[in-house]
Amino acid sequence: MAGEGGSGEDDVIARLFAPIATHPGALGLTDDAACLPVPPGHELVLTKDALVAGVHFFPDDPLDSVARKAMRVNLSDLAAKGAAPLGVLLAIAIPDGMDAAALAAFAQGLGEDCRTYGAPLLGGDTVRTPGPLTISITALGSVPAGRMVRRASAGAGQAIVVSGTIGDGALGLALRLEPGRVGFAALSEQARRHLADRYLHPRPRLALAGALRAHASAAMDVSDGLVGDLAKMLRASGVAGELDLARLPFSAAARAAIAAEPALLETAITGGDDYEVLAVMPPERLDAFHTLATVAGIGVAVIGRTLDAGDAGEGLTVRDAQGLPVTLSRTSFSHF
Amino acid sequence: MAGEGGSGEDDVIARLFAPIATHPGALGLTDDAACLPVPPGHELVLTKDALVAGVHFFPDDPLDSVARKAMRVNLSDLAAKGAAPLGVLLAIAIPDGMDAAALAAFAQGLGEDCRTYGAPLLGGDTVRTPGPLTISITALGSVPAGRMVRRASAGAGQAIVVSGTIGDGALGLALRLEPGRVGFAALSEQARRHLADRYLHPRPRLALAGALRAHASAAMDVSDGLVGDLAKMLRASGVAGELDLARLPFSAAARAAIAAEPALLETAITGGDDYEVLAVMPPERLDAFHTLATVAGIGVAVIGRTLDAGDAGEGLTVRDAQGLPVTLSRTSFSHF
Repeated sequence: MAGEGGSGEDDVIARLFAPIATHPGALGLTDDAACLPVPPGHELVLTKDALVAGVHFFPDDPLDSVARKAMRVNLSDLAAKGAAPLGVLLAIAIPDGMDAAALAAFAQGLGEDCRTYGAPLLGGDTVRTPGPLTISITALGSVPAGRMVRRASAGAGQAIVVSGTIGDGALGLALRLEPGRVGFAALSEQARRHLADRYLHPRPRLALAGALRAHASAAMDVSDGLVGDLAKMLRASGVAGELDLARLPFSAAARAAIAAEPALLETAITGGDDYEVLAVMPPERLDAFHTLATVAGIGVAVIGRTLDAGDAGEGLTVRDAQGLPVTLSRTSFSHF
Repeated sequence: MAGEGGSGEDDVIARLFAPIATHPGALGLTDDAACLPVPPGHELVLTKDALVAGVHFFPDDPLDSVARKAMRVNLSDLAAKGAAPLGVLLAIAIPDGMDAAALAAFAQGLGEDCRTYGAPLLGGDTVRTPGPLTISITALGSVPAGRMVRRASAGAGQAIVVSGTIGDGALGLALRLEPGRVGFAALSEQARRHLADRYLHPRPRLALAGALRAHASAAMDVSDGLVGDLAKMLRASGVAGELDLARLPFSAAARAAIAAEPALLETAITGGDDYEVLAVMPPERLDAFHTLATVAGIGVAVIGRTLDAGDAGEGLTVRDAQGLPVTLSRTSFSHF
């Protein structure tokens, strides 16, 4: 954390962040840099996501939840690449006047997630800002050399698989923005809490990393909406594909909301904030992948297939329960 | 760069950042993560600094200079740790309404520095912010395993050495803030340009990394002011020390400013923004270190000595040309 700022920053670091930076490579956050061995025969996997208050989270979100979200969106990238976490670096730009209790809650949420996911805090920077709270986390992971699961390597004639459930995060956001809309009116308190929690607290599928390395030809995490992200992966891989809406894994809460307001289906499949793993693999790998996922305690569902781009025409076709193509008004979420 | 945002972000990445991310590990910024081998037998050195417009740079600084500063403050940390750069990740939060030309200038400055310093852009994140332009760079370097030069390992009875010149950055900032003050009135245009440039464009001393690994017992980069940073290093190492003001390496411009306004001496030695290397080493290593520094084209000066904390009392004593202790009104610069 050192190398910028002065005593005010040093105090924040010493009081809040040094106590959770217990990994020896962090050097107690008292040096200019962290020092980290990489397991022999392994390569680094690197990702860095930034979150801005009012853009990526609500200014009134609890700061321990904000810290968890910042951690988990990064760890979700590592999971989708088949990587095991090595650690994280944090840059936090703190608004003038943010109170000490809020910062302490942030550090507490961060520290808990560091422990939960085996991703120690190694270093970073603490600065002040006249703008909104801004957080950037860099996550470092490792894979056996040459084994990172790429996005652009999906083959044709393979199965499209997704982990967990789709749409809960986007519906949780919609519920937060418009709690009175018809799709949410009849939801149980438990269903509302489920959706709200899935929006606030992504669940990085690190337990799937080994299974993805073993069986997937390509993978990515679903952050900007299933349909848009899948289209992106197919395009990058030079294949076409079909997505069967009837096979999408929805939670009971999402099913209830969509049943009450069918327009929420589009929110669920294009809204983003899922942080599930989207993977492509040869059909003969499905059984073994499913077994490993079950052992890891993570549900996985086959939701479509890839096709030779030459035979099937361009891109992604979304099909309804009757097998008819569906046209969507948008395919992914953009903050721009 | 992927994994966040949507088409607007993808467009910024594809147009501005992908062309400068030519390292194979960056995967063209089209995957969820970058992939990077680490040289066998080496460890990672990791640092991450954030810069906020209006706090760490002026909102009207040219954006190519801002990009260079963001790069170089991080590379300066690697240099001081004896590390060679492996690459960088960038998170940039772009204010609403920032124009395309400004962003293009940022990318151009970044790309040039990536090439100059052999630190390829590997990935990151592009988001928008309602606040000021905010930049976070994570720099990754490598050292032979176990050879990172620490801050807390300075021995007693050793020489204190600094690279380059001290105070130019802080005086460049003072000149920017109060161009009419007496110390600057008689400066030549060339001297003003020198100070302004040193503030805008730090010079990371990567060419000293090998010499530091070979000879230094401890090192750090001077970012928050020479006196405060040296005191910090001595305290971390459990030694005392003396700094001889008469031996400090000042540029001709700094000397002229200080001669015209002696109060600027304190600005120079406590103001920060030097990004020079401060190192401690046994006296018998000085000749060899000096030779390597000369080969690297970097001036180095002995500016003091470390002392046994038991004999000399606590901390750092600053001595004037007559050897008398000097009291300073502050020792380092803080943004807090």
